[in-house]
Amino acid sequence: MNSQADPLVKRIADSTVRRLSLYLRFLEEFEHLGHATVSSEELAQRGGTTSAQVRKDLSFFGSFGKRGLGYSVPELSGQLREILGLGQEWRVVIVGAGKIGTALAQYRGFRQRGFRIVAVYDNNPDKIGTMWDSFRVRDVQTLTTDAEHEQPDIAVLTVPGEQAQTVVDQLVAAGIRAILNFAPAQLTVPPEIALKHVNMAMELEVLSFALTNREHD
Amino acid sequence: MNSQADPLVKRIADSTVRRLSLYLRFLEEFEHLGHATVSSEELAQRGGTTSAQVRKDLSFFGSFGKRGLGYSVPELSGQLREILGLGQEWRVVIVGAGKIGTALAQYRGFRQRGFRIVAVYDNNPDKIGTMWDSFRVRDVQTLTTDAEHEQPDIAVLTVPGEQAQTVVDQLVAAGIRAILNFAPAQLTVPPEIALKHVNMAMELEVLSFALTNREHD
Repeated sequence: MNSQADPLVKRIADSTVRRLSLYLRFLEEFEHLGHATVSSEELAQRGGTTSAQVRKDLSFFGSFGKRGLGYSVPELSGQLREILGLGQEWRVVIVGAGKIGTALAQYRGFRQRGFRIVAVYDNNPDKIGTMWDSFRVRDVQTLTTDAEHEQPDIAVLTVPGEQAQTVVDQLVAAGIRAILNFAPAQLTVPPEIALKHVNMAMELEVLSFALTNREHD
Repeated sequence: MNSQADPLVKRIADSTVRRLSLYLRFLEEFEHLGHATVSSEELAQRGGTTSAQVRKDLSFFGSFGKRGLGYSVPELSGQLREILGLGQEWRVVIVGAGKIGTALAQYRGFRQRGFRIVAVYDNNPDKIGTMWDSFRVRDVQTLTTDAEHEQPDIAVLTVPGEQAQTVVDQLVAAGIRAILNFAPAQLTVPPEIALKHVNMAMELEVLSFALTNREHD
């Protein structure tokens, strides 16, 4: 995933936020195993990082844990859920009823973390009105009026690259506040909109880099 | 995407590799526009970072560009392709013929960057033998013998979480050297295997965090 400049989250790096997400997952595992407390060393070991990194990541958000006693597992996981904004349900629309869009609409992991898919849109007349599991694909032109009563927070954008900016402008006009973009395109949004890019080829490039540099050893 | 400890790429952070991927994309745009040279300021501006960061990222790999003249666009893009290991074709298998797997098998961006899907596998008898675009879904049990002559480098893992470790063990036994994991599971691999995780819910959590912290302003 590549990150473009985003003034909203500049204070805390995305890499920090991702580690917080990971810590939360580990805490949930520890909770499941019946552990009451956890040390920064245990969290670090579970995540392949250092205890200093764990303490630094948490320090941005206040003072957690007791010296020598570690962190209370239920307390810290509750605090991380709050920091990550997972205490509420987020309403998500998927725009682009293609293969990736279908896969994401059915992705169980979203629902589990409080991301609820409320609608699927496309601009292709052949797709509009067809059923997709429990979703009838809607015309993207209706997004603005739909949004007035459904108030989606986040859009997942899975349209072709050449259509992405047009659709993004529609999303912004409809009041969407955050966009997860899978389209291979650079996008322009007003500064108050949170925008993240997912690029599958770049994920493979990290592996390609690892393989290449191993071979140079 | 979350990163676990990976001794192979510890020297260079994943975030650095991702920025190199981005710089390469920008250089290709500049090349397309007919620009012969580019400054670290221009690259930084295009990517929402600083010119100091651009220079630091490149400095890991040698000395590029000329003071006051900037970087030669074709030269630097060639060098970045080499650093990222994109000078060769990588052979990729997809394991798990579900929704995400189908979407990825057809993802044009992979082919464009030199990642060639050579086969699709599943362990479900209902799926094995069925056609998927140009791919006939193969039995994952045949992976080891297939790999002897096809020699895939990278596996994209899109099986259910509870099956992931079993499949990973098969992949490692078959000689796969890098794994991009979409399954919601922690995986154990030998240290010489490069492993990256993609977690779609975590991508949304970065947005959830941004929305939540904006609202606290």
